[in-house]
Amino acid sequence: MSKLWAGRFSQDTEDLINDFNASIDFDARLWRHDILGSLAHVKMLGACGIIEPGEASQIIAGLNAIQVDLESGSSEFSRDFEDVHMNVEHLLKAKIGPVAGKLHTGRSRNDQVATDLRLWLKDEIKTVIQLITEVQSRLIRLAEEHIDTVLPGMTHLQHAQPVRLSHHLLAYFWMLKRDRERLSESCKRVDVLPLGSGALAGTSYPIDREFVARELGFARVSENSMDSVSDRDFVVETLSALALMFVHLSRFSEEMIIWNSQEFSFVTMGDNVTTGSSIMPQKKNPDVVELVRGKSGRVFGNLVALLTVLKGLPLAYNKDMQEDKEPLFDSIDTSKIALRALGILLDNISFNAKKMLAATKGDFSTATDLADFLVKNKLPFREAHEIVGNIVKYCELNNQTLEELSVDSLVQFSKLFEKASDDIGSVLGSVNSRNSQGGVGAAVVAEQLALAKIALVET
Amino acid sequence: MSKLWAGRFSQDTEDLINDFNASIDFDARLWRHDILGSLAHVKMLGACGIIEPGEASQIIAGLNAIQVDLESGSSEFSRDFEDVHMNVEHLLKAKIGPVAGKLHTGRSRNDQVATDLRLWLKDEIKTVIQLITEVQSRLIRLAEEHIDTVLPGMTHLQHAQPVRLSHHLLAYFWMLKRDRERLSESCKRVDVLPLGSGALAGTSYPIDREFVARELGFARVSENSMDSVSDRDFVVETLSALALMFVHLSRFSEEMIIWNSQEFSFVTMGDNVTTGSSIMPQKKNPDVVELVRGKSGRVFGNLVALLTVLKGLPLAYNKDMQEDKEPLFDSIDTSKIALRALGILLDNISFNAKKMLAATKGDFSTATDLADFLVKNKLPFREAHEIVGNIVKYCELNNQTLEELSVDSLVQFSKLFEKASDDIGSVLGSVNSRNSQGGVGAAVVAEQLALAKIALVET
Amino acid sequence: MSKLWAGRFSQDTEDLINDFNASIDFDARLWRHDILGSLAHVKMLGACGIIEPGEASQIIAGLNAIQVDLESGSSEFSRDFEDVHMNVEHLLKAKIGPVAGKLHTGRSRNDQVATDLRLWLKDEIKTVIQLITEVQSRLIRLAEEHIDTVLPGMTHLQHAQPVRLSHHLLAYFWMLKRDRERLSESCKRVDVLPLGSGALAGTSYPIDREFVARELGFARVSENSMDSVSDRDFVVETLSALALMFVHLSRFSEEMIIWNSQEFSFVTMGDNVTTGSSIMPQKKNPDVVELVRGKSGRVFGNLVALLTVLKGLPLAYNKDMQEDKEPLFDSIDTSKIALRALGILLDNISFNAKKMLAATKGDFSTATDLADFLVKNKLPFREAHEIVGNIVKYCELNNQTLEELSVDSLVQFSKLFEKASDDIGSVLGSVNSRNSQGGVGAAVVAEQLALAKIALVET
Amino acid sequence: MSKLWAGRFSQDTEDLINDFNASIDFDARLWRHDILGSLAHVKMLGACGIIEPGEASQIIAGLNAIQVDLESGSSEFSRDFEDVHMNVEHLLKAKIGPVAGKLHTGRSRNDQVATDLRLWLKDEIKTVIQLITEVQSRLIRLAEEHIDTVLPGMTHLQHAQPVRLSHHLLAYFWMLKRDRERLSESCKRVDVLPLGSGALAGTSYPIDREFVARELGFARVSENSMDSVSDRDFVVETLSALALMFVHLSRFSEEMIIWNSQEFSFVTMGDNVTTGSSIMPQKKNPDVVELVRGKSGRVFGNLVALLTVLKGLPLAYNKDMQEDKEPLFDSIDTSKIALRALGILLDNISFNAKKMLAATKGDFSTATDLADFLVKNKLPFREAHEIVGNIVKYCELNNQTLEELSVDSLVQFSKLFEKASDDIGSVLGSVNSRNSQGGVGAAVVAEQLALAKIALVET
Repeated sequence: MSKLWAGRFSQDTEDLINDFNASIDFDARLWRHDILGSLAHVKMLGACGIIEPGEASQIIAGLNAIQVDLESGSSEFSRDFEDVHMNVEHLLKAKIGPVAGKLHTGRSRNDQVATDLRLWLKDEIKTVIQLITEVQSRLIRLAEEHIDTVLPGMTHLQHAQPVRLSHHLLAYFWMLKRDRERLSESCKRVDVLPLGSGALAGTSYPIDREFVARELGFARVSENSMDSVSDRDFVVETLSALALMFVHLSRFSEEMIIWNSQEFSFVTMGDNVTTGSSIMPQKKNPDVVELVRGKSGRVFGNLVALLTVLKGLPLAYNKDMQEDKEPLFDSIDTSKIALRALGILLDNISFNAKKMLAATKGDFSTATDLADFLVKNKLPFREAHEIVGNIVKYCELNNQTLEELSVDSLVQFSKLFEKASDDIGSVLGSVNSRNSQGGVGAAVVAEQLALAKIALVET
Repeated sequence: MSKLWAGRFSQDTEDLINDFNASIDFDARLWRHDILGSLAHVKMLGACGIIEPGEASQIIAGLNAIQVDLESGSSEFSRDFEDVHMNVEHLLKAKIGPVAGKLHTGRSRNDQVATDLRLWLKDEIKTVIQLITEVQSRLIRLAEEHIDTVLPGMTHLQHAQPVRLSHHLLAYFWMLKRDRERLSESCKRVDVLPLGSGALAGTSYPIDREFVARELGFARVSENSMDSVSDRDFVVETLSALALMFVHLSRFSEEMIIWNSQEFSFVTMGDNVTTGSSIMPQKKNPDVVELVRGKSGRVFGNLVALLTVLKGLPLAYNKDMQEDKEPLFDSIDTSKIALRALGILLDNISFNAKKMLAATKGDFSTATDLADFLVKNKLPFREAHEIVGNIVKYCELNNQTLEELSVDSLVQFSKLFEKASDDIGSVLGSVNSRNSQGGVGAAVVAEQLALAKIALVET
Repeated sequence: MSKLWAGRFSQDTEDLINDFNASIDFDARLWRHDILGSLAHVKMLGACGIIEPGEASQIIAGLNAIQVDLESGSSEFSRDFEDVHMNVEHLLKAKIGPVAGKLHTGRSRNDQVATDLRLWLKDEIKTVIQLITEVQSRLIRLAEEHIDTVLPGMTHLQHAQPVRLSHHLLAYFWMLKRDRERLSESCKRVDVLPLGSGALAGTSYPIDREFVARELGFARVSENSMDSVSDRDFVVETLSALALMFVHLSRFSEEMIIWNSQEFSFVTMGDNVTTGSSIMPQKKNPDVVELVRGKSGRVFGNLVALLTVLKGLPLAYNKDMQEDKEPLFDSIDTSKIALRALGILLDNISFNAKKMLAATKGDFSTATDLADFLVKNKLPFREAHEIVGNIVKYCELNNQTLEELSVDSLVQFSKLFEKASDDIGSVLGSVNSRNSQGGVGAAVVAEQLALAKIALVET
Repeated sequence: MSKLWAGRFSQDTEDLINDFNASIDFDARLWRHDILGSLAHVKMLGACGIIEPGEASQIIAGLNAIQVDLESGSSEFSRDFEDVHMNVEHLLKAKIGPVAGKLHTGRSRNDQVATDLRLWLKDEIKTVIQLITEVQSRLIRLAEEHIDTVLPGMTHLQHAQPVRLSHHLLAYFWMLKRDRERLSESCKRVDVLPLGSGALAGTSYPIDREFVARELGFARVSENSMDSVSDRDFVVETLSALALMFVHLSRFSEEMIIWNSQEFSFVTMGDNVTTGSSIMPQKKNPDVVELVRGKSGRVFGNLVALLTVLKGLPLAYNKDMQEDKEPLFDSIDTSKIALRALGILLDNISFNAKKMLAATKGDFSTATDLADFLVKNKLPFREAHEIVGNIVKYCELNNQTLEELSVDSLVQFSKLFEKASDDIGSVLGSVNSRNSQGGVGAAVVAEQLALAKIALVET
């Protein structure tokens, strides 16, 4: 029986466990922020007299030198030193000798890693917000270009009422505005310094946490050391905000995919954002938007991953929390490249205004406008609907569209149509009549566009 | 072969499809907010001259009467009328006749349902925030009662450094504070009026959306009609905030379950929050906290459900969106009852201060304090650690605890200990020395408690 | 300060905690299987001499009487008795007096609830499999009706190569076949009796678990009592299988929604499976398939919910596990109604063969066939592609389709086309040439259909 | 305004889109299976006369040479060639010239990638199953070593009834057995050849798919080409099975973490599977099991990711599907390293039998045994419970444990105890009495162990 468990586990035990525990393969990317945090910490240690001024200077010089080495590639990390913090400390010791050991006075890896991650994330959120803004600015430009382009507005993927393309595109502008808001708001909770919380209980060294916060540009310091080292809310919040952003990106992508079908032909995408076929010239695979839509999967999955990790963890730090970084890195990276790719797509897409307008012909999507006209002229709703129902039937029988019917024809169904203007039943008449706030009328879309331009530059 | 598809589908086709489409079974709970929304809408229609003042009065009276009937139970909803909106309109027609049909002028069910849900959710979020506050207030009370109770602070569920129980409990206070913040912030995006967006394109009636917003207490009106009828961000945001809250509740629950084990015995729970056994008197099953921990599952699941629903939906309204309500209702209901139950638990739990203190004895969790003492007296870190390592070994050999060692004994390991006070190595000495901001020292915990009391009453 | 925690928690403590703990509101639906399980258990107790034969008879008679009362509605459950097991036992005591207490000999609620749930689920899985089969049979019927209907086969929602509609529909047949397989296989792990595991450690009564298994129709008894009372794998497996089924149902629904757009017009759905508009006759909202697509959300969410619940639970039973039922009930109910609704949809949908065929005209989707022809005639691939590229360009310039080109015209591009038959470049020619196993050629689709009919009746 | 969209998108458009679309960074790992698949395909092309025998030989030789180059590192992949398939083909062309182009005859990347992934996964599932088996074999060894070690069996983390440690460990054996079963069963659906399905419609070349299946060791060929290129069920199934496995691994880990606490001290872990502290000798952070528990997050997240990707995708291939690989690779890699790490842990853990036994003292967990004794001696259940309740109260008052009470003392509570043996109320008596099938009695645990040994070697 003994053979059964004399299996492959027996070899290289130490290595495998070391690999399993090590995080350097993914947390190495935090190294700049790790050094930044260490610089602030050591300045404070010097300023508070916890270490000698000379020691502080030595360590600062050493950290700066390491920074140069790492940027130039002349130093490298090793899995032997488990994580980015130990690797940096190891390089520091090699550079300046035993005084390097003083750097870790009054802190622990538990508060250090939380500080690194927050510093890093503050930068990344800013970049994501900037990239969102760039997509928004393209939506504004396209809306301006297509201020009067009309297409069938759809519900249930069925023609419902004609709308302006500008209005349709601006719908996404406002979704992205909310995404920016959410990221900004969660950033307030990222912008809190945990350093000084120690392993979990604070420290007895006379540290000055406000000093460090100022050095690093944190808005404030955390209130409770146990919370500080085990709080990953700021990561979950960011993952949630990005998941919701991908809901929006996936919706836009879905529309572009459908609009790019031969049957719709509402858009034409540039060769640089599609893949084609040498012998099927009509085939323009909308890879970019398909991938954006598909990548909603990983971004949702990353959120679920971290919620699962954190569920039911006792205070304070647990090794499980090491699993916070990869989902965050992946959702941030995915967001950045997807926004960039969508921005490029929007620079290389053209909307086929003729096709869109043609699609509204004969779709009876202005029938409600006729009924509304009668209601406004005091006809009860039910009666109005019955009359319009008859008009529609007449059109179907005679193979006519609503917009083709003259006012004279309409009058045969109801005298009230005598007061109607010639463009009644027309798509443009319909679109222009909807001047309620936030509607598709020319005036209110212009107002909306003005609001959007203001919102674009708001922080 | 034909028998194969002459199966059970053939019967009652209409009924099954009606049942499948109907939402009245779950959206009925929105009826009060549906009537509220309708009252505001009809007042506006009257004020703007879209309907006659007399008609408006009739409809208002009718809606008020229906409200009374529904409260008293003398009217009931029926699945024949699909959803809450159609049911209310049906009751209205039965009450006041055909003029009821004028209520729907200038709106559609697409903007109506979004309005109802936002109105309802604003109320519910307020309640959840209030319930969080009540749990927080209990944490403050318990922290005050246990301001100086000491227990082993843990990382990896291993004794790390002694902490104050007050500090430990306040860690949860700050988590809950962030939950309140998040709910408040997302409430800003709930607090937007979609009514007036029509089916998707706005309306040509001269409606006044600001009027309706004022009537209903909405902070502002939405900017884009297509976005308005297809936006469920506010639901996703709420579900995300509640999911994160359940991370916190599950963590607290996990700790209470572990603390309630015979092995820990850190807490005793009242009979009304546990289930026992008539013949196993020691058994106190902590059902309440187990259920709270378990209910994180459904709250996470509800978030995933809605993200999945929304992924890849084209504009504007699609029937899929009907699936937004049940996850929201469930997460709100679950949050409310879980918070209430936890509040009751906190009123019926006692912390065993003696057991906690006893657990810190002989756990060497103050060894770092000894090393820190030496470092503060200018001994290099490495050397200090080596000395303390020897002290610990000595204790183990002689079956002594660190706190039992006299200063005289310590001096035998390093002369520097001559300057040490008597409580060096003691748990209380350790706890009280950690006076860094946010640490476990008496002074800083008092400060933290004061901050918490302020935060409690902030809105 | 004291007011802060004298909040709403103080009232009705007991009621709220009772409501929180109680499961009767949702587990009541297990009552038939609870009684079934109890009948088998008591028969065994009698047969093994653990209770007197007379006592067994009394209890059996009592359980049967309760069954009648519950079916007729003359007995009801109450939240006072927490769950379905206690409610049934309470009714039994009221019916037959103290001997009712003997029923619970040698079992516990921990093994009882697992037994009930497995019994119930075995029945439900059978129903779901039957409903899948009925959908499959409709796909077969439609495939037979449309054995030769041709439409553009798509990748990236772009026309790629023409395919048979029968083939397209059968793709879903095979997905559903895998769903049935998965459900059948997980049913093997549902089909295991936990009863007799007691609270967690088995029992010292001389029970006969095989007897009970035979009575209840379980394939075997569980091997380990601790595993038995804490195992919810069978629920997770079912939820996983249903989630994957909803991937398939959502894909089919998505296609039907797109095909139902005016732009595609590939399908026409009956009035009983769509909602229309009285004055927009062209509008047929495909509510049924939109809801099916949307309901994938809740089914995915239910899976996440239970995985979350179970993560990190120590052995054996924990109250968290009570959260297993609602997600399971919901996913089963959702699956059943969605399959029924889809079945009805398939009975009320018509495929517009003319529109489909027309959509293949001029889409150059047979260009690969021309290239393949040249390659088969020994022209190197690259050269063949270049020639066909030139043909396509020629067509575009001259506004011609590939199928319109005569063999004579083709020969001008390559002599090799002399050997070509007249239908080269034709859609039908393309479709019929693809006679690789599993392809869209007439012969191989016929084979596939034959295989599908066999698979339909396999168990 | 124009500056707003003249942002960073403008630079390096092509590169970014290429990076976004490329999959070579992660699909490179499939290269061995890609070559394997190509070898089988080209042999078939030669055997069927679709290409010349000499061409086939040339291509085979080229592929073999590339294999050697890649193994030795003398060839490398480049992002310029997008994915693994194009990279291999590019290397082939460089090696053997234009004849390389014939390799792709009668196939497409759509069926090729599905084939590669299935081939790869078949191997990986075998490895995972083998690693599960090695963990199971360790559980058996430990169960044998601790066949009679007794510990408190818990429900709700409360002492319920004493159990054997062997039994407790074997509970995990059976969970893992189900994991193996699930993986084996889903492997049947992995083991299907899609090659020959072409882009989506099959091919007109006279290919022999059965030949290729035999070459590659696939059990059968797929039935429908459209299904074949868009089917990712086999990936979802594997991700589901691994998610459920991680439920089990996380439960075991949670128990080991709790057992490793000072308060429980049920286990001692070796230095090579924990991290310690140089000056806190008692601290043994159970990193390995914490990480295993935490990694359940990513494995659940990967499942959610792919379900999200697939939801609502129309037939056949869409670029979204490229997102299938990373979650699969990650869940497989995570499973393998976690199982290996757990195996090492089980080789380096010792169970503290004395502590476990001591924990059962005075916990009244044998009270049910006393009651059962009375019931077996015909006392009604209620009365029996009342008597035992009194005994327990007596013990509490007199600070005695149940096992300390002599039979004489018990008789004072009920004459029926006269028949009792001396070990009544003893923990060992309790454990040994529970001889129901699957219970904790010595005889039935021995049976269970025998069954487990058989199950271990079953395939």
